[in-house]
Amino acid sequence: MTNSAYDANNIFAKILKGEIPSVKVYEDDDALAFMDVMPQAPGHLLVIPKIGSRNILDADPAVLSKLLPLIQKLAHAVKDAFEADGILINQFNEPAAGQTVFHLHFHIIPRHQGMGLKPHAGGMEKVDVLEANAAKIRDALQESP
Amino acid sequence: MTNSAYDANNIFAKILKGEIPSVKVYEDDDALAFMDVMPQAPGHLLVIPKIGSRNILDADPAVLSKLLPLIQKLAHAVKDAFEADGILINQFNEPAAGQTVFHLHFHIIPRHQGMGLKPHAGGMEKVDVLEANAAKIRDALQESP
Repeated sequence: MTNSAYDANNIFAKILKGEIPSVKVYEDDDALAFMDVMPQAPGHLLVIPKIGSRNILDADPAVLSKLLPLIQKLAHAVKDAFEADGILINQFNEPAAGQTVFHLHFHIIPRHQGMGLKPHAGGMEKVDVLEANAAKIRDALQESP
Repeated sequence: MTNSAYDANNIFAKILKGEIPSVKVYEDDDALAFMDVMPQAPGHLLVIPKIGSRNILDADPAVLSKLLPLIQKLAHAVKDAFEADGILINQFNEPAAGQTVFHLHFHIIPRHQGMGLKPHAGGMEKVDVLEANAAKIRDALQESP
């Protein structure tokens, strides 16, 4: 299947290689978290493993094992940073499911009661807004390690 | 916070205790997968850890580590069973994010190009339809272990 191939030149792979800038929130040996440039809500964060896979279907299970505890930690920080009432976690596999960048990623989106979301992959946010939001999440991460 | 408490009498806890029936697809020492009774698409599967937590925010990281590799395996089976073009994985934390049952759960939803989804927690599906869909996923699990 052609749709199972990993393209090492996808946007997130280029972010990992430092060829494209991103607004980073967290990084360790295994994963990177950075702001979604087309946020569905302020604080919309993306988490990607450093080892490339197209999506969850072709990922190494050992890579997957480490991701969810990190997502939990980041979800707490996002919730605290934006005083969110809830956290939505989305993960899309293949275009029919909404995937637009073909490197495995998880969306962590703060939700507030009664407030809707912008569409997925909608308008670009200003970099200074993304930077300010990233700083809030980084601060929250440091306050509750 | 009152919303951080785990209620051991939630519907999924009762399913785990066998007090409420469910259409099971997969079970091991750590997790259970069963059909969502209000599917957003045919084949909509739920995965829950056996150890109770309200959602991802209060889950044991050791429990979380085991979940994603299992979700991957089940996502493959759902994709194969329904010849899906993609797989949507959703996880809702707190009512503001769409959570309606307060035991950590992941949605695995097959997607087909050009076909929409029914709303979350919409209409009830007939049990015989759920049973037939579960059988398809169980067969797919056996074919690609």
